[in-house]
Amino acid sequence: MAHFLASELEALGAEVEQRPLGKQPGKEHLDLPPVVIARYGNDKNKRTILVYGHYDVQPALKEDGWATEPFELTVDAQGRMFGRGSTDDKGPVLGWLNVIEAHQKAGVELPVNLLCCFEGMEEYGSEGLEEFIQSESKKFFKDADAVCISDNYWLGTEKPCLTYGLRGCNYYSVSISGPAQDLHSGVFGGSTHEPMTDMVNILSKLVDSQGNILIPGIMDLVAPLTEEENSLYGKISYTMDNLHESLGSKTNIHATKERTLMARWRYPSLSIHGIEGAFSAPGAKTVIPAKVIGKFSIRTVPNMESEDVNKLVFDYIKAEFAKLNSKNTLDVSLQHDGKWWVASPKHWNFTAASKAVKQVFGVEPDMTREGGSIPVTLNFEQATGKNVLLLPMGSSTDAAHSVNEKLDKKNYIEGTKLLGAYLHYVAEEPVSEA
Amino acid sequence: MAHFLASELEALGAEVEQRPLGKQPGKEHLDLPPVVIARYGNDKNKRTILVYGHYDVQPALKEDGWATEPFELTVDAQGRMFGRGSTDDKGPVLGWLNVIEAHQKAGVELPVNLLCCFEGMEEYGSEGLEEFIQSESKKFFKDADAVCISDNYWLGTEKPCLTYGLRGCNYYSVSISGPAQDLHSGVFGGSTHEPMTDMVNILSKLVDSQGNILIPGIMDLVAPLTEEENSLYGKISYTMDNLHESLGSKTNIHATKERTLMARWRYPSLSIHGIEGAFSAPGAKTVIPAKVIGKFSIRTVPNMESEDVNKLVFDYIKAEFAKLNSKNTLDVSLQHDGKWWVASPKHWNFTAASKAVKQVFGVEPDMTREGGSIPVTLNFEQATGKNVLLLPMGSSTDAAHSVNEKLDKKNYIEGTKLLGAYLHYVAEEPVSEA
Repeated sequence: MAHFLASELEALGAEVEQRPLGKQPGKEHLDLPPVVIARYGNDKNKRTILVYGHYDVQPALKEDGWATEPFELTVDAQGRMFGRGSTDDKGPVLGWLNVIEAHQKAGVELPVNLLCCFEGMEEYGSEGLEEFIQSESKKFFKDADAVCISDNYWLGTEKPCLTYGLRGCNYYSVSISGPAQDLHSGVFGGSTHEPMTDMVNILSKLVDSQGNILIPGIMDLVAPLTEEENSLYGKISYTMDNLHESLGSKTNIHATKERTLMARWRYPSLSIHGIEGAFSAPGAKTVIPAKVIGKFSIRTVPNMESEDVNKLVFDYIKAEFAKLNSKNTLDVSLQHDGKWWVASPKHWNFTAASKAVKQVFGVEPDMTREGGSIPVTLNFEQATGKNVLLLPMGSSTDAAHSVNEKLDKKNYIEGTKLLGAYLHYVAEEPVSEA
Repeated sequence: MAHFLASELEALGAEVEQRPLGKQPGKEHLDLPPVVIARYGNDKNKRTILVYGHYDVQPALKEDGWATEPFELTVDAQGRMFGRGSTDDKGPVLGWLNVIEAHQKAGVELPVNLLCCFEGMEEYGSEGLEEFIQSESKKFFKDADAVCISDNYWLGTEKPCLTYGLRGCNYYSVSISGPAQDLHSGVFGGSTHEPMTDMVNILSKLVDSQGNILIPGIMDLVAPLTEEENSLYGKISYTMDNLHESLGSKTNIHATKERTLMARWRYPSLSIHGIEGAFSAPGAKTVIPAKVIGKFSIRTVPNMESEDVNKLVFDYIKAEFAKLNSKNTLDVSLQHDGKWWVASPKHWNFTAASKAVKQVFGVEPDMTREGGSIPVTLNFEQATGKNVLLLPMGSSTDAAHSVNEKLDKKNYIEGTKLLGAYLHYVAEEPVSEA
């Protein structure tokens, strides 16, 4: 895929390099797939846009339940283009190449310089990319005036969106240990403090069934909701039916779409993922687990700083554990954290994209954030210091990562027009303050 | 092993049968190993004792960490006889055969008739045995006046015991489900009711860190502690150091041995074993599990009836779940139950064994109960309607089921004398009221 992409870019006249990223950690006999970087245009009088995408895909086998061969693009009567990577992220990557080709065929000069960064390990945590972006920030990427990433999705199926924010994630482990080995609950039940008893007690103190985080001080770190922001949610093209459809159930906490979107985008949440070390198989086993490790994570939002969150979490859990008067031993630690990201939607990068949506689709785009994280977004922002825009091509029904992944022909064609139009508006926009 | 045992018994002059138990459920190409039943003596003027043991063992491989070949009996300088099955339960089974042989060699008539029931699936849940015992209760087992089982252990290492009680076990599943499939916690955290949040909440309401069962009404079912019973615990040969040694930690709930033994033998306990369906592997996964099944069990004691316990458990959990105002769905069910067992230690079966201990070891035995369950005990009691005695040969340090299982030569030789002496006192004891 890297070679194919490089040769396509070369055929279009771009300067292309395939940069090695070294060996795959833990699998030292394997080279990481190279990053394909390219420059198209080098006019000092034009803005330079850095575009990111990835050419790797999730695994797929027909027997997973695909209706068609996953690695043969199959278009049905409704114009749905089925195939692994169609929407995530080969379609959008090809979209950028189509933009260049279309300009060449129409005899129109591209109004900006393009820098491309297409990686091959996105679905495996972008192994090696963060270091690469950092080391090239003052070299290959130094001319970038803004960044555009097309690797997410519309909130629904009808209306394009521009994405300007992501939640961060702090992932924690709580370990509770007691006896030296697992015990028989018949023999020892009632005479020893049991780590699982303490564990469910501690985990039950973190969040209630309505999603309220019970750790004191956490909500005080959250940026207050302004009148201006509050007024944005009602206009977003989203319904409670959309939520019910994605859940496959009517287990929504909030009654309105506004409150649901806020819960997803701008408030923190705490999820308990599971417990390591306890009995987790089907059936029955009368064990007292000797050591159990509870896993939970907090989705973070502005202005939560990771260290502040950690301190509140650690202090609270230790204090709650002390109340139990258990002779077991508790340890709580951060497994990893990733910061939230919010860009300024008033930056020319966004206003250009917004005008392009209006031009191509005839509507104002929804300005959205996302509940999950896309770490490369923050990496580019931090390394280049420039505004980053998420400009999705596919829709919410594309089933990225799932069977029968598809991209609608309409989204592909209009989305490619959108990428092109965006570059034209980028060239015209005045410098913004933000 | 069945053939070996049958031929040994035949050589001693017993009438022996190897009874098939059909096919192994779920593995229909395999015959269950036969039950070896035998009669030795048929004198209507003698009492008849039914003895039970098993000739199968736990799996063992040298590479599990054994210091010696697990299937070669190896005796060290301290007289410890290492080998799989030495204490559980081949040693005690051979003990019965040695008793017959010793009487023959000494020219002394056995003072009772013996019925033997030696099975080969004990370590696999005694597959097929309960039905066999039931169907033979009025046939092969009909003459039994009492039952003696040598398949448990002394409480410590110095003092023999007679065991007259076992706790029962009610094993429960609590299932909580919400969304149709596992969800991404970034996208849906905060906007849907999460089954794991409800689960840890429900489980935290069952038992506190001091081992107190929080389900209202459970403790009201427990037989009150009488003065007489209360006075028994102080005399038992057991120390808090014994407990710490078996736990490998000092995480005892109770400060005294008396209260510890009561917690193990005569009070119920509730242990939380684990959660099926949640993330249980090492590392981090940001999943919202769609359906989780919590597993816990209650060790039951006199006079807790299973149906009463179930009703209290079901009603309480449903009421607590209702308080959560969650839109998830809860289901709670009993996976299996096994009743507690308490025999009368004043029955002649016990007084005979007690006198035998005094004769062989020079001490009064500890009268003990056990926290776990040995279902065959209750099966024999219910099928024959006769008193059942647990008369252990091995000590608490024998490491049954573990690596380096052993039986001390002293326990084997004195224990065999004990089995023989027991049969003589059985022949002499007057009929008891109990």
